[in-house]
Amino acid sequence: MATSHNKTKFKDISNTGFGANSSVEGGRLVNADGSNNLRKTGLPFYERISIYHSLLRMSRMNFTLTIFAFYTAINLFFAVIYFTIGVDHLEGIDVHAPLYIRFLNAFFFSSQTLTTVGYGHVAPSGILTNFVASTESLIGILAFAVVTGLIYGRFSRPRAYILFSNNLIVAPHKGGKALMARIATYKNNHLTDAEAQLTVALHVNENGKMITRFYQLPLEISKVTSLALSWTIVHPINEDSPIANFTDEQLRDARMEVILGIKAFDDHFSNTVQQRTSYSHPQLVYGAKFEPMFERSPEGNYTLLELDKISHHTRVPLEEQVVASQN
Amino acid sequence: MATSHNKTKFKDISNTGFGANSSVEGGRLVNADGSNNLRKTGLPFYERISIYHSLLRMSRMNFTLTIFAFYTAINLFFAVIYFTIGVDHLEGIDVHAPLYIRFLNAFFFSSQTLTTVGYGHVAPSGILTNFVASTESLIGILAFAVVTGLIYGRFSRPRAYILFSNNLIVAPHKGGKALMARIATYKNNHLTDAEAQLTVALHVNENGKMITRFYQLPLEISKVTSLALSWTIVHPINEDSPIANFTDEQLRDARMEVILGIKAFDDHFSNTVQQRTSYSHPQLVYGAKFEPMFERSPEGNYTLLELDKISHHTRVPLEEQVVASQN
Amino acid sequence: MATSHNKTKFKDISNTGFGANSSVEGGRLVNADGSNNLRKTGLPFYERISIYHSLLRMSRMNFTLTIFAFYTAINLFFAVIYFTIGVDHLEGIDVHAPLYIRFLNAFFFSSQTLTTVGYGHVAPSGILTNFVASTESLIGILAFAVVTGLIYGRFSRPRAYILFSNNLIVAPHKGGKALMARIATYKNNHLTDAEAQLTVALHVNENGKMITRFYQLPLEISKVTSLALSWTIVHPINEDSPIANFTDEQLRDARMEVILGIKAFDDHFSNTVQQRTSYSHPQLVYGAKFEPMFERSPEGNYTLLELDKISHHTRVPLEEQVVASQN
Amino acid sequence: MATSHNKTKFKDISNTGFGANSSVEGGRLVNADGSNNLRKTGLPFYERISIYHSLLRMSRMNFTLTIFAFYTAINLFFAVIYFTIGVDHLEGIDVHAPLYIRFLNAFFFSSQTLTTVGYGHVAPSGILTNFVASTESLIGILAFAVVTGLIYGRFSRPRAYILFSNNLIVAPHKGGKALMARIATYKNNHLTDAEAQLTVALHVNENGKMITRFYQLPLEISKVTSLALSWTIVHPINEDSPIANFTDEQLRDARMEVILGIKAFDDHFSNTVQQRTSYSHPQLVYGAKFEPMFERSPEGNYTLLELDKISHHTRVPLEEQVVASQN
Repeated sequence: MATSHNKTKFKDISNTGFGANSSVEGGRLVNADGSNNLRKTGLPFYERISIYHSLLRMSRMNFTLTIFAFYTAINLFFAVIYFTIGVDHLEGIDVHAPLYIRFLNAFFFSSQTLTTVGYGHVAPSGILTNFVASTESLIGILAFAVVTGLIYGRFSRPRAYILFSNNLIVAPHKGGKALMARIATYKNNHLTDAEAQLTVALHVNENGKMITRFYQLPLEISKVTSLALSWTIVHPINEDSPIANFTDEQLRDARMEVILGIKAFDDHFSNTVQQRTSYSHPQLVYGAKFEPMFERSPEGNYTLLELDKISHHTRVPLEEQVVASQN
Repeated sequence: MATSHNKTKFKDISNTGFGANSSVEGGRLVNADGSNNLRKTGLPFYERISIYHSLLRMSRMNFTLTIFAFYTAINLFFAVIYFTIGVDHLEGIDVHAPLYIRFLNAFFFSSQTLTTVGYGHVAPSGILTNFVASTESLIGILAFAVVTGLIYGRFSRPRAYILFSNNLIVAPHKGGKALMARIATYKNNHLTDAEAQLTVALHVNENGKMITRFYQLPLEISKVTSLALSWTIVHPINEDSPIANFTDEQLRDARMEVILGIKAFDDHFSNTVQQRTSYSHPQLVYGAKFEPMFERSPEGNYTLLELDKISHHTRVPLEEQVVASQN
Repeated sequence: MATSHNKTKFKDISNTGFGANSSVEGGRLVNADGSNNLRKTGLPFYERISIYHSLLRMSRMNFTLTIFAFYTAINLFFAVIYFTIGVDHLEGIDVHAPLYIRFLNAFFFSSQTLTTVGYGHVAPSGILTNFVASTESLIGILAFAVVTGLIYGRFSRPRAYILFSNNLIVAPHKGGKALMARIATYKNNHLTDAEAQLTVALHVNENGKMITRFYQLPLEISKVTSLALSWTIVHPINEDSPIANFTDEQLRDARMEVILGIKAFDDHFSNTVQQRTSYSHPQLVYGAKFEPMFERSPEGNYTLLELDKISHHTRVPLEEQVVASQN
Repeated sequence: MATSHNKTKFKDISNTGFGANSSVEGGRLVNADGSNNLRKTGLPFYERISIYHSLLRMSRMNFTLTIFAFYTAINLFFAVIYFTIGVDHLEGIDVHAPLYIRFLNAFFFSSQTLTTVGYGHVAPSGILTNFVASTESLIGILAFAVVTGLIYGRFSRPRAYILFSNNLIVAPHKGGKALMARIATYKNNHLTDAEAQLTVALHVNENGKMITRFYQLPLEISKVTSLALSWTIVHPINEDSPIANFTDEQLRDARMEVILGIKAFDDHFSNTVQQRTSYSHPQLVYGAKFEPMFERSPEGNYTLLELDKISHHTRVPLEEQVVASQN
């Protein structure tokens, strides 16, 4: 049986950061986007969250909306204050205009103060209003500093920009078979010294208890000097493979989860970047091979990398007997 | 006797950066927050301090107060100058108003210049006042640049966000006992390739002189690929442990100090981060085990990490004889 | 024959990130500026491009022009809006002036709002115009934040500032010959722990198919502690060299491409920097030696590095028989 | 003789980045502040210099003066333009005032535009003046962005803040003698994993030609976990030392230069930092020992590091015969 085989021959690893007790796990360990499938409790929300990083990871659209919402909220807040003090302390506002006009004018004065545009056709008079306006312009400057920091942070956040194939495939390989995934960088960035690490989690029954076992899957090439083109990560399923004796069905029963992590040095950021993904059994294609995804350009003077083909594969039969004879 | 045993069998380490001469040490070496228990003299204060970093490490509240205080001080300074030159050089200010009104108006004009809001209902006239205002607006812009830099620096300062258990415990472990501490990240950050290092400092009497000896405490697992859940750092107290022959009382007498350092790569910052803490003897619980702190979520589709349980432990008896038989 | 010799004696490397199939390559692999000779398709343009990094790598002139163009475009856009609402809602503009004057005044009002200079001799009136002006000043602040981020990013982008010699030369070396390139840093930066890596790509006919073989070229010194002066990278062409049996003509026929990569730690940026270049056969000078490029200064108290001499070389005959005897 | 001894027993190193030919060297290799004693020619000044980094390394005083000078120059430039167009296009300026008053008003209007304070008591009229003002306010914003970047860059530039002892000393050490230098961090920063490297350059006569030989000097401890207190770098002058057979006079004749480099990880910046210095023979004290520089604080609850004692040493005799017997 596969598991007993594993227990005797292959050493599972205990330093993955995940526990061996399957009964406390909730579904998969790592999500497809590389985040841990995990929530934290026991601390107040604001202590558990890094607001800065949440704003960095927000989509561009949401980030812009957040800023506009914030801008409106601050202006409303100060408009209420100016209005409460009295718009007669805002020189230039017609104090006989209808209430909503006066409030809107207080709102617009607030925005002119917050952004420091300060036209001056409306200007504060009286100590209290002057004091509030003075405070608001400082808050405006601080808020702007925060936004500048956030925008720069969003720009300069080192990311690997790696595209992963949607599927793991088991493909024929050197007379046997191999587990393969394919990656490529999809931006105009350049990764050097890229390293891949492939880890499998298998849920196995040991003495009646479900245990999660982790194994490192050895790769044919685990480091490339330059990640210029696509890179097919190859784990040969031979006698050195912890999953050599697992059939497609057994992998499904063991709720196989394969975590693929990439670490590289990025020329853009001059920084180490990393990205990972996780494949569960429904994403495994047993018996297929990847189609080529780069070719000589029509002009013949450069190479063309076709990113839309990253997951393209063709079904091919596997020679199962080759593996069988290895046992 | 324990110390003589150590001297012959275990090699102490001399590259901790701390000296061996106990008589020049003042109390503990490292504070619980990881800073060195150390003060520096012999250089002027401004050369010993990095103002930038002090402002980075200040609490959010203090930082905000500092900025407001600074803002007020600069405005007061320039208000005095404008007032001294004469408020008749600030067009728009009523020169017949009471003194304090005129001064406040100079103050508000200053704030409008410093923040570059410049409404213009008050405007400088005369060469001197224009010159001062021109200088003040440049200073405002520079001050704003400084604040932007500080705020971005505060945001982006790489931190490990690690929660340490309040106590070190000595727990039963594989038929013997082990020294354990527990850590977890408490923010929405993700540490990879996390390494732990556990160092003990013991003050021992050698030939009548108090000497501080440092020993590395070997860990069962010293590096994890991903610090997703909690991580219990385990130092087995067996024949390879420099503290194997120390009883709880002897550790107290030797004024035991255990320094736990963590170094990891952070996905948030794409940077190496590190954090450390130090445990002294009153924090050591002899005979206890940590309670579990993560479990399957009620919905069953993710794992729940309960941060408030990081220090929870239950008293359990230790089988002291196991260790005794090793001698 | 050279290729068969290589196949048996030298191990080619498969982890360069480039493929072995010559038929999909388009011309050279790496351009002289170090970028990959590669284009990507299959994803929309905006997903393939990092706008931020394109703006970082743009020349200073183009970057400035882009900003001015953008500034004009935004102002035109808002001028059209203000004009459409009606310039009678911009107090201070003469509504009886000719159309182009009114439009230009709307344009200038827009620029005063976007930059937050807000003189106020023209000021918004009416809810709609006030609302647009309020929005524009926020956009101005955000745009400024973006520009600040870009400018800081351009400043602080870690670069190696390495000057490569235009040619690879084959020079006499210790009774034999060696392949040499020469580098130096050309700015007031200081690289430490600089490492060089020299890789050759050779296109060879194997069983009637063109295969690209990659070989690491061993260097006499592959790492220097400090890259203060110039550094001549030396690959001795002896029995350990994969190109020992290639004549100048054979290297040309194999469409030799030599990739030189430098990785170092930069004192300026306190960061790892890297730069590479690629030499093809037309840049190979067979039989030459580099001329000295540094000397004692006339005053005798410092060393002078003459950067314009980086590629200077003199033709010298090679003793071909030395290599022949090694076979 | 010392040199012949070295040639046979000690391997000199050739990867220092400096050449072996003494005749092209100009004086010392590395200055006391760690910079290379080197000038570069052959490229235009602006290509050899990184303006950004020059501004980063400038003293705070010079940096401030540069900004004020720049501010004045830009304002003068635009004042001339406004004046040339005609101050009648600057509403609010008295066109009948004396020439210098009108020019100064143009100057102050320029400064109000550049800093975007824009009071508006003076405002542009006419297309040309409006166009110039619109351009100037954009330039103001860009200049401010540059200044913000520079100030942040100055703040956040990772530096080691290491204090080196002024002298190298040869001190008695374990019955023999050792070459020692002493370092400490002088700010509230904390360096971990600090590594030291000590290299000596000796100018020796070989076959009538002056050759510069470099040797690594092995250290008793070359890496400390934490650079909390001071660290005395110790090179034991025993049979493994390349300078064991050099007397003080011979070191002087060989124009000894000792380069001390420190590389560490800084907690402040979460970055690798490095700093180096160079000692020439006049800084060598033959026969001395460092005085202690840290002690228990009067209160007894912390350790006191006295930075002003970093170079303090006492003359002590060396037991020369011990070394002699090693030969």
